[in-house]
Amino acid sequence: MARDVTADPRDEILRAAARLFQQRGYDATSMNDVAAALKLSKGGLYHHFQSKDEILFDLMEQAMDITQDRVIDPVRRLIGDPEQALRALIRLHIDLVSSLRDREITVLLHENHPLPPALRRRVNARKKEYVRFLESLIADVQRARKTRPSVSARAAAFALLGMINWIYQWYKPEGELRGEELARQFTEIIFSGAFQ
Amino acid sequence: MARDVTADPRDEILRAAARLFQQRGYDATSMNDVAAALKLSKGGLYHHFQSKDEILFDLMEQAMDITQDRVIDPVRRLIGDPEQALRALIRLHIDLVSSLRDREITVLLHENHPLPPALRRRVNARKKEYVRFLESLIADVQRARKTRPSVSARAAAFALLGMINWIYQWYKPEGELRGEELARQFTEIIFSGAFQ
Repeated sequence: MARDVTADPRDEILRAAARLFQQRGYDATSMNDVAAALKLSKGGLYHHFQSKDEILFDLMEQAMDITQDRVIDPVRRLIGDPEQALRALIRLHIDLVSSLRDREITVLLHENHPLPPALRRRVNARKKEYVRFLESLIADVQRARKTRPSVSARAAAFALLGMINWIYQWYKPEGELRGEELARQFTEIIFSGAFQ
Repeated sequence: MARDVTADPRDEILRAAARLFQQRGYDATSMNDVAAALKLSKGGLYHHFQSKDEILFDLMEQAMDITQDRVIDPVRRLIGDPEQALRALIRLHIDLVSSLRDREITVLLHENHPLPPALRRRVNARKKEYVRFLESLIADVQRARKTRPSVSARAAAFALLGMINWIYQWYKPEGELRGEELARQFTEIIFSGAFQ
């Protein structure tokens, strides 16, 4: 399930850090800034996190956990009906990236911050797992529909991920294109492109 | 036209800085690092650029100039035939973001670096101009085809920009999905989604 506000100090630190990274940029935010935002001493902060890298890595893991809880797991429950599963994936993933609260965290997955190579590899492995899951779901729908698609499952998967992960660049909660209507139109584009 | 290697020291500084930003991250790169990479004295570098912000802003402007030269201007010449113009836009924009040489620069447009608000507004104004150009081109094709599309020109424009601007996240020059084939499949997705 989604994480609610808790008394867990690590969670509070992560949430505050994500907000500062969003407002000021990752590199312009120091460990001191994070401590100050939470009225923690520097020692108090270092008790929980040894470095800013560690905070960033934990936030990226949290972003993947949220994606797992809110998108992948519910979609897996629909796996007997690949078409419904894909429609649900599009809707749930759009809900996630357009939620103000989670956006601060999920956007970190896309930025090219210097993470130590071992940690970078772990994040990339989970991202690749999601791409493969989506690609195989699209291939399932193509098989179920028995059409001969001129767009490969892989191209459709990357196209869909780009459409969805780009939303944070233009999305306005008060704009015309949002919620159900956004999900409907993006679903239409992918379904007519990949399954015609 | 595309900028070739020149003896212009500002251009050389921008190119070297873009490479360092790509390799190490924007904030982890100092003005000293840029000077060292070019075997310039710090004074020599500051003679051309007063701050890292100025370098970043100039790089973003250059990215927009390259997009203008290599995508928008050639597409405008086809404006009498909106469908051909849109096909050309997709192909040329994909060429641009998948070119190793230009990727170091164009990717900077997408990252959330802290730029002074006045400069940030100028960059955003040019980005918005491109979105409007694309949206109006898609609307022209919809009118020319006389169909009643269930996907709006705006949704299709954002979908296409997401698909293309996301390419740098997964693209491999030696991969299967590249060049003409990538452009064909992405064109297919947008054309069947927006013009069915």
